[in-house]
Amino acid sequence: MGMKCIGVDVGGTSVKLGIFETTGELVDKWEVTTRKEEGGRHILADVAASIREKVSSMGLDLKRDVVGAGLGVPGPVMPDGNVEVCVNLGWHNVNPQKELSGLLDGLPVKSGNDANVAALGEMWQGGGKGYGDLVMITLGTGVGGGVILDQKIVAGRHGLGGEIGHIHVREDEKEYCNCGGQGCVEQICSATGIAREARRKMESTDTPSSLRAYGDAVTAKNVLDAAKEGDGLALEVMAVVSRYLGLALSQIALIIDPEIFVIGGGVSKAGQFLIDMVQKDYDHFTPISPNKPKLGLATLGNDAGIYGAARLIL
Amino acid sequence: MGMKCIGVDVGGTSVKLGIFETTGELVDKWEVTTRKEEGGRHILADVAASIREKVSSMGLDLKRDVVGAGLGVPGPVMPDGNVEVCVNLGWHNVNPQKELSGLLDGLPVKSGNDANVAALGEMWQGGGKGYGDLVMITLGTGVGGGVILDQKIVAGRHGLGGEIGHIHVREDEKEYCNCGGQGCVEQICSATGIAREARRKMESTDTPSSLRAYGDAVTAKNVLDAAKEGDGLALEVMAVVSRYLGLALSQIALIIDPEIFVIGGGVSKAGQFLIDMVQKDYDHFTPISPNKPKLGLATLGNDAGIYGAARLIL
Repeated sequence: MGMKCIGVDVGGTSVKLGIFETTGELVDKWEVTTRKEEGGRHILADVAASIREKVSSMGLDLKRDVVGAGLGVPGPVMPDGNVEVCVNLGWHNVNPQKELSGLLDGLPVKSGNDANVAALGEMWQGGGKGYGDLVMITLGTGVGGGVILDQKIVAGRHGLGGEIGHIHVREDEKEYCNCGGQGCVEQICSATGIAREARRKMESTDTPSSLRAYGDAVTAKNVLDAAKEGDGLALEVMAVVSRYLGLALSQIALIIDPEIFVIGGGVSKAGQFLIDMVQKDYDHFTPISPNKPKLGLATLGNDAGIYGAARLIL
Repeated sequence: MGMKCIGVDVGGTSVKLGIFETTGELVDKWEVTTRKEEGGRHILADVAASIREKVSSMGLDLKRDVVGAGLGVPGPVMPDGNVEVCVNLGWHNVNPQKELSGLLDGLPVKSGNDANVAALGEMWQGGGKGYGDLVMITLGTGVGGGVILDQKIVAGRHGLGGEIGHIHVREDEKEYCNCGGQGCVEQICSATGIAREARRKMESTDTPSSLRAYGDAVTAKNVLDAAKEGDGLALEVMAVVSRYLGLALSQIALIIDPEIFVIGGGVSKAGQFLIDMVQKDYDHFTPISPNKPKLGLATLGNDAGIYGAARLIL
């Protein structure tokens, strides 16, 4: 039996945990509720207790059998592990990696932003396996990103590394994004953005469409399913989404030129259909060379975070 | 007397060379003509002969006193030092670092793309001194870029790292860029682009302007000088340039978030006036956080290449 490492992915509702062989196999995974009361002060104690329980239930010893734990945090993490503010958890000026290490008898603990950590997970055992330079784009409720170069997270000097969702791409956008900008990638390519674009197109055109049955309750999944069936309006929506996602990918390619882009998040369940659309737009915006980063799909789903967190400590 | 290192910046017309203390002081610099005939096969022999001559004229010994030489090449350089094609020099499938090392009795030689190498030079002894993560943007005849993270060049996996001039930013551009795209940063923010934008504005508006005296021969320098004097049309031109440069910087900030941007090249001679304009647009496109990479000016001018080349070998 080899050495183990632990991955902890702290979310606003639940904390996901996993125990891994250091070679990358997931041995067991579980969850605990995120107790956000009192400024989130119980979260790490709950995590530590849960880790102790799991380790001992497996007949393992924390000191002897576990090399360390990694921690994904839903907010910016400074290079020294400090978290100034984490709105989702209520944390202010904490150093969760130091704290968790203290709660686990000095076990080595490293932390990182959750989107970056998920990218690391996909590199280790997911859609980016075998690649050292990758950028992951997560198309969910929002759009997140994680940049990995030379197998290491590029968190940036001000916590802005991988904030791909807030790149300005659309010139004619009038509505504001949460970040205060207009025309961000997230406003178009997130699940929320796709549904919004569908509502707009239903209002502004007379194109008949199966989506009209959903009215204002239309979802990104409805749009993607209808687009795959050839629905004209849904395809128009996806042409917009694909164009701006392809544009953002081209910008990344022309700045850091990774080996591969890994597309994840709920929207990526549309699979190769989405990749094929985006590839055309991405190629359109990178005429400079036929040799460029590949596009691929994430494969770890919601487990990317625990994989990446565990990889942090290796 | 400390150890020395040599920086070689190969250009299409001349090769610039410099000999440095390994602590960063430039001891001497000189140039030789770039002999491009016969597929550029004499270039490296000329460089080697010139280095030998200089080293011995200084009473130094290549083996004893020089740690190595770095080489900036005006084209893509693969990680193993191979250069598939370098149009400006006539090179095809050469490995200039291996070749130059052979010509210098096995002296260690490392090579890199010239724009990346210039960025490394600015990090070592120029506008980026003291910073480990920086992106340099060179606004010259074209627009070049160099990305440095953790004191190392990010050349990219397909030679596209730092190709910031070919990021698509302008949606309404009808003309094509050399790269085959439309609306590239280079089409707007290079000296060529600035002059073109001025010609367009002179044609399409009746705004009185001191620039009209130059007619079609208007240059970027004319535009910058007139803008500093408050000329309305010149300021309109610079507003366009600044907007798209600020947009490109925002994209880089939201992907890799360096410590500082260093703006160089002929256009950057406009100095703080240019920086102040661009800062406003850059801030506009990064409302997400007040903490972001700084903007600064390059300070090494045409010597950035020899500095960076010498730094390559350290």
